[in-house]
Amino acid sequence: MKVISILGSTGSIGTNTLRVTSAFPKKFRVAGLCGGRNTALLAAQVEEIQPDIASSADAEASAEVQGLLRQRGYPMARTRFVHGLDGHIEVACHPESSMVLSAISGAAGLLPTYYALENGKGIALANKETLVMAGELIMEKSRRMRVPILPVDSEHNAIHQCLRGGTEEEVGRLILTASGGPFRKTPREKLADVTLEDALNHPTWRMGRKITIDSATLMNKGLEVIEASRLFGVSADRISVVVHPQSVVHSMVEYIDGSVLAQLGPTDMRIAIQYALTYPERWRTPLPSLDFQKLANLEFLEPDPEKFPCLDLAYRALRAGGTAPAALNAANEIAVEGFLDRAISFQDIPRIIETVLDAHKPGKAAELEDILEADRWAREAARACCPHRRRTVSGGGA
Amino acid sequence: MKVISILGSTGSIGTNTLRVTSAFPKKFRVAGLCGGRNTALLAAQVEEIQPDIASSADAEASAEVQGLLRQRGYPMARTRFVHGLDGHIEVACHPESSMVLSAISGAAGLLPTYYALENGKGIALANKETLVMAGELIMEKSRRMRVPILPVDSEHNAIHQCLRGGTEEEVGRLILTASGGPFRKTPREKLADVTLEDALNHPTWRMGRKITIDSATLMNKGLEVIEASRLFGVSADRISVVVHPQSVVHSMVEYIDGSVLAQLGPTDMRIAIQYALTYPERWRTPLPSLDFQKLANLEFLEPDPEKFPCLDLAYRALRAGGTAPAALNAANEIAVEGFLDRAISFQDIPRIIETVLDAHKPGKAAELEDILEADRWAREAARACCPHRRRTVSGGGA
Repeated sequence: MKVISILGSTGSIGTNTLRVTSAFPKKFRVAGLCGGRNTALLAAQVEEIQPDIASSADAEASAEVQGLLRQRGYPMARTRFVHGLDGHIEVACHPESSMVLSAISGAAGLLPTYYALENGKGIALANKETLVMAGELIMEKSRRMRVPILPVDSEHNAIHQCLRGGTEEEVGRLILTASGGPFRKTPREKLADVTLEDALNHPTWRMGRKITIDSATLMNKGLEVIEASRLFGVSADRISVVVHPQSVVHSMVEYIDGSVLAQLGPTDMRIAIQYALTYPERWRTPLPSLDFQKLANLEFLEPDPEKFPCLDLAYRALRAGGTAPAALNAANEIAVEGFLDRAISFQDIPRIIETVLDAHKPGKAAELEDILEADRWAREAARACCPHRRRTVSGGGA
Repeated sequence: MKVISILGSTGSIGTNTLRVTSAFPKKFRVAGLCGGRNTALLAAQVEEIQPDIASSADAEASAEVQGLLRQRGYPMARTRFVHGLDGHIEVACHPESSMVLSAISGAAGLLPTYYALENGKGIALANKETLVMAGELIMEKSRRMRVPILPVDSEHNAIHQCLRGGTEEEVGRLILTASGGPFRKTPREKLADVTLEDALNHPTWRMGRKITIDSATLMNKGLEVIEASRLFGVSADRISVVVHPQSVVHSMVEYIDGSVLAQLGPTDMRIAIQYALTYPERWRTPLPSLDFQKLANLEFLEPDPEKFPCLDLAYRALRAGGTAPAALNAANEIAVEGFLDRAISFQDIPRIIETVLDAHKPGKAAELEDILEADRWAREAARACCPHRRRTVSGGGA
């Protein structure tokens, strides 16, 4: 029996993880849940799973969850209710769990994941910001604690599988596939006019709003390049991106002997989640298998760096190193919030990030505090470029 | 330093193997060569490589090779010259060699490969008939002698690589890709009119004449299904064939958890040869890598069993087991010879094989002699269906 805690259980990865664990009731026990502000969903999950511990965004949300559960006659003593960052960290470090599925989106996922590692928990990682911001620190801790980090992102999960075909020294390069997002065929000059609704309409994957916008700008792929570099110890110049609109090939590894291994599968994230939770084993899935007759045509194209400058910005931050990736990530989070709030245009996103990177002096990312400081600084700097965010979030600061 | 013997050095796989070994002069030594009737090429190879031992098809061919070498002032004492089946077996069992590249085409490759295994040589196997005819016997010997059989065929080589992604129990099915051959788009009713020249015009791979015809009938894929079943211990119902005209994906493995691993690469057989010779290591290739921008479109289609009955005939022989695959293979060799001699039509090939399979009573394939007897019987039976072969080869027999 594998006992796991799920950080971010009410999000898209979290709910899919619960579908995976419930498909193997004799092999998985979910001992900890950690949700956001969707109190109704968290309450329903607690009711079904009866975890040892459940954390909500804050005291108010936790009270709401508990209220809903009491109404339904839930045996309240079964679960301990906590909240906020401390609560999230408690779930991450829950003694009964041997593994943590880390899927709190954004920078908020970093600290719970860090402490889970420090407590020797295996990590199934869906929160890419953890590695983007603090990759060196986290990988160093993973090595020292001798606990694995298994990627849940379909691309990194694919690469993890393909890397089984050779040793570290035999890897030539990693090839991340990108769907190209909803604007792959949009002429560059039309990008100025795209709406929020256009950007939220992702062609192949159903995901959260933030990551869907990141897919449209290709920043998602940029963050994945940084994540891949940290996770697999491969430098920027040995990581390529190829646009593959069908999202059937999830990513590839080219070996020095000319062979390329690719991982393919249905566009269902449960396959990668299950792989991460069961590794080094593979368990028989109840899901339908890939239908080769339906594949028909698979395309592979070069990304257009002029149309999607976010990809090059990410490579730039990765090459700069230190705190630069954390600054990139923070600037992107603020810019995407601005776009989701309709305060800035789609093309403002890379402009704001570039302005922040230009102003950032990358320091060493030796301690968590260095990284969090760069994160705070970059958020302020990004808000300063983003009128709406400056006004409403930081009250005219920066 | 790896010391190897090459069986079939003057063929397409053999010459490519020598290009691989000569790219790593400090890591490979070729100690034995075994050629066919292309005496000029064998003499040139001996002159360049100076092997310990060289075998020719027969005494006459050997004399020719030696004559050519003497004319060029070759140090004759450097190499021992042998010939015929006994000579081939001597090369296969040459004490200095630790590995044998087995690429004599057709049934003639079986015995030297068998004796190489019995003498503890690792096998890089390009001769598919060895496993089609005597797969159970050969794999049993490989296990008992604890020497590996590394496949050189691009499909099986791909599967060997993809199988590194999981355990035997985790494999769902093997998916062999087929180019579909030159008649993929030919309407079924037009197949009656195709010429030898049409059939020899393979769209993606440059290979010998026999295997090129086998690609056109899809019997090549059928033989590969049998070979894959033996080599990887996977039953017929867990092996699929998918038509993939671009031959970029060389084959795939589907795991029980829904993940599919695929191996891709340039259509250059040196990559598979090098993998087989260097396994479990991978060495940096001097060849250009796969150009993803040139891939553009990859197609995957279902094979048409009515147009290409050879594929189903191979599945039928595999399911029948025992000596049936040997009979299938022998009947196919005779039928293809007939087609290459313009004695029969393209569509006669499956007809003859089916007639032979209908008449064959599969016996146990416990001993090499059982298999060779089934081979002889099926050749006779096939010649009986093939007027030209009956007249000229067996003198009106059967």
